[in-house]
Amino acid sequence: MKKFLDQDFLLQTPTAKKLYHDYAENMPIIDYHNHLPPAEIASNKQFKNITEIWLKGDHYKWRAMRTNGIDENDITGSADDYTKFERWAATVPYTMRNPLYHWTHLELQRAFGIKKILNEKTAKDIYKECNDKLKKLPVQTILKKFKAEVLCTTDDPADSLEYHIALKKMKGAPKVFSAFRPDKAMAVENASTYNSYIKQLEQAAKKNIKTYEDLLEALKLRHDFFHETGCRISDHGLETMYADDFTMKYLERSFSNIRKGKALEEKEVSRFKSATLYFICQWNAQRGWVQQFHIGALRNNNSRLLNILGADAGVDSIGDWHVAQPMSQFFNRLDNENQLAKTIIYNNNPSHNAVYATMTGNFQDGKIPGKIQFGSGWWFLDQKNGMEEQMNILSNMGLLSRFVGMTTDSRSFLSFPRHEYFRRILCNLVGADVENGELPKDIPWLGKMVQDICYNNAKQYFNLV
Amino acid sequence: MKKFLDQDFLLQTPTAKKLYHDYAENMPIIDYHNHLPPAEIASNKQFKNITEIWLKGDHYKWRAMRTNGIDENDITGSADDYTKFERWAATVPYTMRNPLYHWTHLELQRAFGIKKILNEKTAKDIYKECNDKLKKLPVQTILKKFKAEVLCTTDDPADSLEYHIALKKMKGAPKVFSAFRPDKAMAVENASTYNSYIKQLEQAAKKNIKTYEDLLEALKLRHDFFHETGCRISDHGLETMYADDFTMKYLERSFSNIRKGKALEEKEVSRFKSATLYFICQWNAQRGWVQQFHIGALRNNNSRLLNILGADAGVDSIGDWHVAQPMSQFFNRLDNENQLAKTIIYNNNPSHNAVYATMTGNFQDGKIPGKIQFGSGWWFLDQKNGMEEQMNILSNMGLLSRFVGMTTDSRSFLSFPRHEYFRRILCNLVGADVENGELPKDIPWLGKMVQDICYNNAKQYFNLV
Amino acid sequence: MKKFLDQDFLLQTPTAKKLYHDYAENMPIIDYHNHLPPAEIASNKQFKNITEIWLKGDHYKWRAMRTNGIDENDITGSADDYTKFERWAATVPYTMRNPLYHWTHLELQRAFGIKKILNEKTAKDIYKECNDKLKKLPVQTILKKFKAEVLCTTDDPADSLEYHIALKKMKGAPKVFSAFRPDKAMAVENASTYNSYIKQLEQAAKKNIKTYEDLLEALKLRHDFFHETGCRISDHGLETMYADDFTMKYLERSFSNIRKGKALEEKEVSRFKSATLYFICQWNAQRGWVQQFHIGALRNNNSRLLNILGADAGVDSIGDWHVAQPMSQFFNRLDNENQLAKTIIYNNNPSHNAVYATMTGNFQDGKIPGKIQFGSGWWFLDQKNGMEEQMNILSNMGLLSRFVGMTTDSRSFLSFPRHEYFRRILCNLVGADVENGELPKDIPWLGKMVQDICYNNAKQYFNLV
Repeated sequence: MKKFLDQDFLLQTPTAKKLYHDYAENMPIIDYHNHLPPAEIASNKQFKNITEIWLKGDHYKWRAMRTNGIDENDITGSADDYTKFERWAATVPYTMRNPLYHWTHLELQRAFGIKKILNEKTAKDIYKECNDKLKKLPVQTILKKFKAEVLCTTDDPADSLEYHIALKKMKGAPKVFSAFRPDKAMAVENASTYNSYIKQLEQAAKKNIKTYEDLLEALKLRHDFFHETGCRISDHGLETMYADDFTMKYLERSFSNIRKGKALEEKEVSRFKSATLYFICQWNAQRGWVQQFHIGALRNNNSRLLNILGADAGVDSIGDWHVAQPMSQFFNRLDNENQLAKTIIYNNNPSHNAVYATMTGNFQDGKIPGKIQFGSGWWFLDQKNGMEEQMNILSNMGLLSRFVGMTTDSRSFLSFPRHEYFRRILCNLVGADVENGELPKDIPWLGKMVQDICYNNAKQYFNLV
Repeated sequence: MKKFLDQDFLLQTPTAKKLYHDYAENMPIIDYHNHLPPAEIASNKQFKNITEIWLKGDHYKWRAMRTNGIDENDITGSADDYTKFERWAATVPYTMRNPLYHWTHLELQRAFGIKKILNEKTAKDIYKECNDKLKKLPVQTILKKFKAEVLCTTDDPADSLEYHIALKKMKGAPKVFSAFRPDKAMAVENASTYNSYIKQLEQAAKKNIKTYEDLLEALKLRHDFFHETGCRISDHGLETMYADDFTMKYLERSFSNIRKGKALEEKEVSRFKSATLYFICQWNAQRGWVQQFHIGALRNNNSRLLNILGADAGVDSIGDWHVAQPMSQFFNRLDNENQLAKTIIYNNNPSHNAVYATMTGNFQDGKIPGKIQFGSGWWFLDQKNGMEEQMNILSNMGLLSRFVGMTTDSRSFLSFPRHEYFRRILCNLVGADVENGELPKDIPWLGKMVQDICYNNAKQYFNLV
Repeated sequence: MKKFLDQDFLLQTPTAKKLYHDYAENMPIIDYHNHLPPAEIASNKQFKNITEIWLKGDHYKWRAMRTNGIDENDITGSADDYTKFERWAATVPYTMRNPLYHWTHLELQRAFGIKKILNEKTAKDIYKECNDKLKKLPVQTILKKFKAEVLCTTDDPADSLEYHIALKKMKGAPKVFSAFRPDKAMAVENASTYNSYIKQLEQAAKKNIKTYEDLLEALKLRHDFFHETGCRISDHGLETMYADDFTMKYLERSFSNIRKGKALEEKEVSRFKSATLYFICQWNAQRGWVQQFHIGALRNNNSRLLNILGADAGVDSIGDWHVAQPMSQFFNRLDNENQLAKTIIYNNNPSHNAVYATMTGNFQDGKIPGKIQFGSGWWFLDQKNGMEEQMNILSNMGLLSRFVGMTTDSRSFLSFPRHEYFRRILCNLVGADVENGELPKDIPWLGKMVQDICYNNAKQYFNLV
């Protein structure tokens, strides 16, 4: 019997242990997609307590607490920080078999050296110990502790990128890149919020936006600006892929309507998104960027909590839209015009794994190894079974060896142990194959493959260091 | 090598064995959804032979026999009871790896103490032994043998509930509750059968049904009546979720048409179901009931057998309708009006597991632990792999610890060993995690979790004992 | 630790080894669906080198090479045969965990007795050794080496079948049957290619095709001709199942339009396919054929490569069309008229496994054991996990024991070790169940089941030897 969360956590065979400890464990981290706030990195923020760094923005934990019968007031409401922590601690035993149980104890061990199990009884001691240790753990120290070499945040085209610019000039600061995420520029479902957003974009781009063509120009100006400040990634959160045919005339009419506050028809929305996405992806190709598509989340399901807490309140789930045909058409159109950038596709619905994994193979061009990537287990799939399934499907239907590996997609500076989690799972899968006689026991070869997936592939693919 | 079906069946590790034998094995059973006939419980029916109790209503076995090349006459036709049993016995070896193979031998062991393997050679002896023992196994004795503490049947709003009422008054009888299943009141696809049904409902509710509003009143009268007799559950068999907008005027027109025998358009059917379901769910919330949704079965695929045998003839399979968006809209509408009752959602298509598991998290309210439940592996998913996948997805995307666990959904009094089957699988999953170092070896904690899932959670959730 | 690819490859338990070596290993092969060229069998073709037999037509390898960053010129272009082989050899280590890694080394061992690992360093030696040995391995020798007793190819209705006819008369030649694959006769999406095809069909059927009724007559003439030459299988590659209602008048109008070069509307295409498929399936039933449906591939996604290389260029992937309802309707219509032939359904999308597996159960008729078959893991699913999932779902939702087992679906004469691969996986699954106490250790019974699945069931089902 293995001990819980010891040094060989998740490593079930001698080969797995060897691969992890000799090859994977010490590689630095390229966290190429996350939602960390650049301001907090630039200011080297010091968190006042574990509640602030751990619970304030973590909607995974909120969901678990609600399911466990914790009152909203003690989750996101006016309860004091210790009460909130204590409620979380009381919930932890009920997260048995949920990734939160592993992440919680991994983070306590790795960030604070705490090996106790968190529950109602240990809450007080652990709260105190974390808070004491946090005093010596400002953000940049945390990043160094976890060997986070490169971070790519997620930023709106209207963002000033002031903190990214500042960080670039700061000596000894971590390498932090922005990612161009134009979701709001495509969110034409709601004329009122859309027109508010256009105002912000006008200010950022220093350009009046009267027509759809103006919109494209403004976005292109921001795309250029992002590029100048070092950005090399565009990122897209979509329900499904959009690949309708369109004409500029049609789009101008839709845009004119929405600017007048009129609601668009479903068909118009879809064409608008198809076009806008298409133009941005052309710029991505021209600039040599990587584009990432996060597809299939069904968001903001609970109006009650959405109205109180806003988006990202832990009331999102998994959608079941069709995606194969439009995705094929979208990429084919770009590929056919030699405008298909390096691309990563992430699915939210695990029953789409095979569709995504095989889609990548259609557009590999024989020039850039692994040019089209099936992204690592995302959001609800970012757990042991989810990662294993993603890697098994990728192995069976593509080349695992060319995979750019893990990224946290996290809002928390304590989430980097998920890279360790991923690496252990990877080494365990490969190790099991060796032990079962399904792969030759050629450790240097497999060790190199593991290191490629953990770090080298991402380094070469994103070309940021 | 483990022996087949010994005391440690399905328990692969010492921890699994400990959890099962010390914690799960002796818990009573709350079977909160099944199709047992209340008349047979009330009359304490004695079955004349094993064919009658085992084969008469079991469409799982019929399907297997047809697939095995057994003539319909020897399955549901005029063949004598021994011939039918003998044909089933001859089929059993061909059910290798099917849950029927396990269930068959579990039921022979647990109900009759027979440890032989059933096949053509043993058929005669086993037939005789079962029939002898059945003489001392009337229904209520069987229920006691299996510690079936609570049973919830499935009943039409027009049902008199006479047997439930009688059972309530009967000394020493098992606790049997009805469930309000208004599927027929929503089945407006067929005007002719619908109008026949309305007649029944009129009689039961003692109310003329001229308008849609009359229909709602009649249903509400029956809902009230069910409540008065102890019912606390409403149950719904649906192809997908229905969440269209509607107006009363529109519904009245549709209802008037159907009452005249006119076929409704697809859109009208969908709006009718959306509305009717919505109103019933409001009553459920107001009464503090639990509502269960069994979604996604594609029924009555074979007209030939449907015409001969009627519904539930073993010619149903798994559908692939979209469900995520309408389900979100349906629950959100209720939640937003504070009218969302405790809810269990069951999917028939395993590729929807993740959609259902994550949907529950959107509507947890922090008041009732596990208020919205992802239901146990249902119908075709009610087997080892199906249960494991349901519990793994629930673990990863929700809180397994708050799960109300297993229910048989069965038409047979011999199906209760499926609770044992489920409990062994649960203990084996948790045990494996402990042995692999993925959970701490804290047996009292895990034992309590296991007991909660096997019994305590359902007891608290349904609040029937 | 097991050695890579030794005699007990994929066999993890003593029972698995016993079942494989004592029962499965030596059974002959009925390869009832493949894409082997009958001309090359009839001429007993001798391949000039390993590139020609291994890389020329294998789009699985092409995809992997493109993903690995190999230039198209060295894959399908003008590079010399050794360069192409060398590029493949350099790619092999990067196929770690992909079925190509296993297939490659299995084929080197089984066809050539080469136990070395293929990579850049060993490429030269292995190239030479294979080429030397190929001199003594003309096609018919290869087939005998692999005990390929029956082969069923895939043929267009306009095909002359001259090689099948020749082979039938050839002494000592392998048994090669055609399969009637009328996909082109249904491909009305493109009027221009369709009309070209109709010309071919007119010539083959020696009949002018002016009307839809003419088309049916011409196809029926070819169906008859195929039957006379020994064909007993019809095969269909479809995106989804088609079960629209139609009238002959409607179809005549559509057909008239397409013959004039007019594009059909989506609805017309769907009705045309529904009707044509329906008529062909009636002929299949009348002739006692087996019909196979390969459903759900999303083909020809990359126009750039399609234009250069034509179809089957390795730019196909997995679709996500709805299929349950039309499939039920299609089969029900035939069954209801007693016109449902023996049928095998294959899905390309693994998330449809359960839909397909349970669909079969609706139409089993109790006369032919396993009449409706859930086909073996197809295309992207033809790998260890895919096969295991197909067999587990089939076991849980149908009768594995009545399964007709594996077929290669391959274009290469070196692919027969995939039957070995399948058999090892089958024996390993059954063996594990025995070792875990989930099946009784009754080896003669299980050995018979294994032999049935490997060979006997297909022999009885197809009735070709």
